[in-house]
Amino acid sequence: MSSPIVFYDIPGKHPKYNAWSPNTWKTRYALAFKGLPFKTEYVEYPDIEALCKKIGAKPTDTKKDGSPHYTFPVIYDPNTKTVVEDSLNIARYLDKTYPDTPRLFPDNTHVLQNAFLAASGSAVMMPLFTVVILATCNNLNPRSEEYFRRTREVSFSKALEDFVPAGEEGAKRWKEVEEGFDKIASWFTDSDQSGPFVMGNIPSYADVDLASRLIWAKVVLGEDSEGWGKIKQWSGGRWEQHLKLMEKYENLA
Amino acid sequence: MSSPIVFYDIPGKHPKYNAWSPNTWKTRYALAFKGLPFKTEYVEYPDIEALCKKIGAKPTDTKKDGSPHYTFPVIYDPNTKTVVEDSLNIARYLDKTYPDTPRLFPDNTHVLQNAFLAASGSAVMMPLFTVVILATCNNLNPRSEEYFRRTREVSFSKALEDFVPAGEEGAKRWKEVEEGFDKIASWFTDSDQSGPFVMGNIPSYADVDLASRLIWAKVVLGEDSEGWGKIKQWSGGRWEQHLKLMEKYENLA
Repeated sequence: MSSPIVFYDIPGKHPKYNAWSPNTWKTRYALAFKGLPFKTEYVEYPDIEALCKKIGAKPTDTKKDGSPHYTFPVIYDPNTKTVVEDSLNIARYLDKTYPDTPRLFPDNTHVLQNAFLAASGSAVMMPLFTVVILATCNNLNPRSEEYFRRTREVSFSKALEDFVPAGEEGAKRWKEVEEGFDKIASWFTDSDQSGPFVMGNIPSYADVDLASRLIWAKVVLGEDSEGWGKIKQWSGGRWEQHLKLMEKYENLA
Repeated sequence: MSSPIVFYDIPGKHPKYNAWSPNTWKTRYALAFKGLPFKTEYVEYPDIEALCKKIGAKPTDTKKDGSPHYTFPVIYDPNTKTVVEDSLNIARYLDKTYPDTPRLFPDNTHVLQNAFLAASGSAVMMPLFTVVILATCNNLNPRSEEYFRRTREVSFSKALEDFVPAGEEGAKRWKEVEEGFDKIASWFTDSDQSGPFVMGNIPSYADVDLASRLIWAKVVLGEDSEGWGKIKQWSGGRWEQHLKLMEKYENLA
């Protein structure tokens, strides 16, 4: 390994954390965890498709109208001349290509890690999405903000402002997020295992998955926000602690 | 370890497999996997509560009316003079108490295994339950059959016959079960891991969990039934194969 990996990410307005997307953070943490040198290239939302086509990155999904959907993260590894799309694919690529660095999927836990991603996703992803989507939009630079709002409002057929209704209804959504995180916490507490990470004392991809959702909320809501203040206290402080433990992998290169 | 563990199970009418319950099969597989001698005591549904009270087993749940709910599996281990309830608790107890036998939760995978149980449960448990509940009832001996039907019909406010409607609606339910199993299969195929088990070449509790659901369907639907014929073909034959691999732990002692 000689040349730094090129890592394509979407910029935000946060003064410290340019990076905010939970999906691209998975790659950012993964690269840092493996100790691989990399260099971020920030691309605004409306420019993602053109960039992907230019470097030969494949679409990862299909839009409602049937056209290809290009998404980040994407990496270009000049050492192998390979473009890789999708956070999970990238993580697997890194484990395979750089087997002498710490493993994201240790000890034959690929299938278990996949199940963890499915279970943690269904526990928190939808309710978390609803309570942070407006803040996510507001954290973007103007061109991305306009693009994000327009495309999401078409896709969900509602204004971003209507995702988290005020008052009681809003409190109910937040409660759902908390219950989801409590459910994940119960997998830790209801076990004969110690150590702060999903696999005890060593971090693995499941920890990257959790931290990416948490840092997303922290960055777009803001560290001093009421929302992040709530999350910090959930599950006995486990999530604030988790993010602190992963801080050493917060490489903003 | 000298005396066999006493394992309390619910009997059925299947000529080969007395045991049929997915929850008690988890314990049956677990005991056999660890090579621990045990002896089954079969107890009909209406007698479970009295048996639990007699041996000092705690209720594992609360009924709708607020009264305690006693469930199987329960074990009594004469070597430690301990009664343990609930399949997952029992599995953990066995790993802790008999650390020199094969591990159900190897290599710090407790949290990951918990997530697997949550994810596989939400992928298939509800739709599978609906398509096998009537066959489950019909497989019971008369006293248990009457008890099972009466309590389930109160609990779900519908006749067991109405769980799987005929025709198109029924086909839709079966399709949901298939999609759930395909989702689980994708955790295996969409990974850089080989070997037939969740953790590659060694079985663990996640495999016990999967096999318990499969053998439940096989026993109560019947090996020659249309339903089991379907399941055998799903996910490229993966599930029939999985049950075959776990056959050596089908100890009906």
